Amino acid sequence: MSSYCMATYRLFDEKADFHKKAQGIAVGLTVGSWTDLPEAKKKHMEKHLGKVVSVDVHEPPGGERFADIQIAYPDANFSRDIPALLVTVFGKLSMDGKIKLLDLHFSESFLEGFAGAKFGVRGVRQLLGVHDRPLLMSIFKSVIGHDLPELREQFLLQALGGVDLIKDDEILFENPLTPIEKRVEIGMQAAREAERQTGQKLLYAVNLSGPAGHLSEQAKKAIAAGANALLFNVLAYGFDTLRELSSDPEINVPIAAHPALAGAFYPSPYHGIAASVLLGKLMRLAGADLVLFPSPYGSVVMPKEENLAILQALSATNAADYIFGGNAENTADSLRLASSFPVPSAGIHPGLVPLIIRDFGLDVVVNAGGGVHGHPMGASAGGWAFRQAIDAVVQGASLQEQAGRHPELQAAVQAWGIKQA
Amino acid sequence: MSSYCMATYRLFDEKADFHKKAQGIAVGLTVGSWTDLPEAKKKHMEKHLGKVVSVDVHEPPGGERFADIQIAYPDANFSRDIPALLVTVFGKLSMDGKIKLLDLHFSESFLEGFAGAKFGVRGVRQLLGVHDRPLLMSIFKSVIGHDLPELREQFLLQALGGVDLIKDDEILFENPLTPIEKRVEIGMQAAREAERQTGQKLLYAVNLSGPAGHLSEQAKKAIAAGANALLFNVLAYGFDTLRELSSDPEINVPIAAHPALAGAFYPSPYHGIAASVLLGKLMRLAGADLVLFPSPYGSVVMPKEENLAILQALSATNAADYIFGGNAENTADSLRLASSFPVPSAGIHPGLVPLIIRDFGLDVVVNAGGGVHGHPMGASAGGWAFRQAIDAVVQGASLQEQAGRHPELQAAVQAWGIKQA
Repeated sequence: MSSYCMATYRLFDEKADFHKKAQGIAVGLTVGSWTDLPEAKKKHMEKHLGKVVSVDVHEPPGGERFADIQIAYPDANFSRDIPALLVTVFGKLSMDGKIKLLDLHFSESFLEGFAGAKFGVRGVRQLLGVHDRPLLMSIFKSVIGHDLPELREQFLLQALGGVDLIKDDEILFENPLTPIEKRVEIGMQAAREAERQTGQKLLYAVNLSGPAGHLSEQAKKAIAAGANALLFNVLAYGFDTLRELSSDPEINVPIAAHPALAGAFYPSPYHGIAASVLLGKLMRLAGADLVLFPSPYGSVVMPKEENLAILQALSATNAADYIFGGNAENTADSLRLASSFPVPSAGIHPGLVPLIIRDFGLDVVVNAGGGVHGHPMGASAGGWAFRQAIDAVVQGASLQEQAGRHPELQAAVQAWGIKQA
Repeated sequence: MSSYCMATYRLFDEKADFHKKAQGIAVGLTVGSWTDLPEAKKKHMEKHLGKVVSVDVHEPPGGERFADIQIAYPDANFSRDIPALLVTVFGKLSMDGKIKLLDLHFSESFLEGFAGAKFGVRGVRQLLGVHDRPLLMSIFKSVIGHDLPELREQFLLQALGGVDLIKDDEILFENPLTPIEKRVEIGMQAAREAERQTGQKLLYAVNLSGPAGHLSEQAKKAIAAGANALLFNVLAYGFDTLRELSSDPEINVPIAAHPALAGAFYPSPYHGIAASVLLGKLMRLAGADLVLFPSPYGSVVMPKEENLAILQALSATNAADYIFGGNAENTADSLRLASSFPVPSAGIHPGLVPLIIRDFGLDVVVNAGGGVHGHPMGASAGGWAFRQAIDAVVQGASLQEQAGRHPELQAAVQAWGIKQA
């Protein structure tokens, strides 16, 4: 039995025969030609032929005509890696008119090529010993041009605010002032210092950067210096590089995937790759333990339905969400891939915590930069304001009530307000 | 003296203060905040601060309001690699509304980190011993599911047609039926066999594929088996992987960059990365000897002005086209980077050769799949028809006249017509 991976596309066209177009894709991106083949050859080539799974034509009155098309591609045609799959299903096709890649489903056999995240939601929670509430991450604010003592001070202030994770700025690259192993050293020192006060563990995701071929070595250098997490600009290097890092047994720390460059792919309705594929399924497949993406609340916005589609892709436990084909029993199975932590980012302040938890549930990382550092009472108070907001929502209390008990949250609420869920 | 790389963006917004927005980008993507800094700190941070170079606001009557904005980013902020530059100038920013990256100019210092193509136009011509006409490339037609003897036969037919280059289909990945070293072996055998008849050299660009970390090893295996060129799906792996391959002294053959997935980036006016950056400057910088892109003539189309912008990016010899800043004398210098061969592709037949040469000049690769294999007299005649068309245009003869002398061209012209330049 052949097995297939399936791509879902949206095509806009005023008058195309979408069924014919779908057939053209199924043949053109697999065996090349079909009707011309001699019968004997057809028998042999059948297992390499793409199949049209569905064609769903929409002609909204007053709107643009489009079709959602699903094509199944035989596994026999491509190696079990993301570059081969993407080049097959959206290589040439990406350049062929108004077409967007909306979704991917994988064959069981293709999925077997991927170990997924080493830690995922459960593993990250275990490392931190935090199981019953959303995690809190803070982002370095100003890092470029600052030296190690300055970074250490900023790190310590954040760590003393009770955050669970601190991430590097994604634009902090290898540099002589604060090289990765030195950053790790001062960061982990500060983390231990804070832990003596807070009693709390902390992960510091340092930014991997530089030549593609040296990333693995750089990761190991950082780990040897004490790094307990990594940040990675996945889209600048390709998904397979993330997969290699995440599946390397020596890189035994969680990897946070940054969405830098993602806006070059997902925002257009007519072109590119949907956010739920780019920052959802492919990140999870490639092994991201945490995935950052623009929240629907803040300054850099993504529509909420796209956020929720990412969440669904990162957390789905039903195999049918990922697997195409197989028998009905199998697709009711649970997915073997670890769930990745969703990290909706940008413009987050404590008054948004009720909304974040309503939309994402408890398995979410509340991630803030300005919302921590810009707190009227300083960065540590900024962290605590978030922790207080999280505790309130988890305990079913209102932020107003909680703010009455905690000056940090009170100040945050005065500065940024509360958005009711 | 600080040196800077400069990014040019197009932003659409109905009412934004574009000057303020530009300032926000220049500060936000570099030092983070500026007005709040103490004076002493400003002095130190000045060298890390981004600068607004220009803001050009357009309010076309009846059209959408937009601005072209140029921001200079200090080299001090990023390492000398394409991922770091892209993440700096278009990482977070790509997700911030309707914004497209239109152009990049590099500092001299940044450019020094790049060797560019090993061969380029001149080197590829030297390998082939062809200096006075456009080159001809043909593309394997059906490859998936075909075995080595079938590929050899198809290869031989193409090679006997007088083509200069043959490229793998970009969707042919490592597979048990036709593994890369076996493909190379039978291809190069067929090339030698054809050379005995045609007296002509031929480059066979075999497709590199599979895990990112094994590409270099795979390239070397192919070269050891006799490969004299490589094809690479650059965007599936990232520009830095191309740079690593192209700058590896042991990978001493030309690399043809395939544009698979490029349509996820360039077609929207509102989002993504312009084709001239994606398939032009960055490919050249990363060391592509030949760059394929959708022609403006054929089935998979790109507007002609974008094609010409790619051509300009691949062939510019004036340093000012690539370098930002420096003194006026330097920017009149010629660019050290080798030119890359433009390969406008898709829908090409012999009747388009006059147009191709008018638009691209003689330093172009005429690249055809269906236009070779679909020739009424077979693939070899298909190749000769192109060569005859090329010769006619180079000698200033008309295709009609030339077709009267050559049955192959005659048949091609009857099948597909002539587009007058």
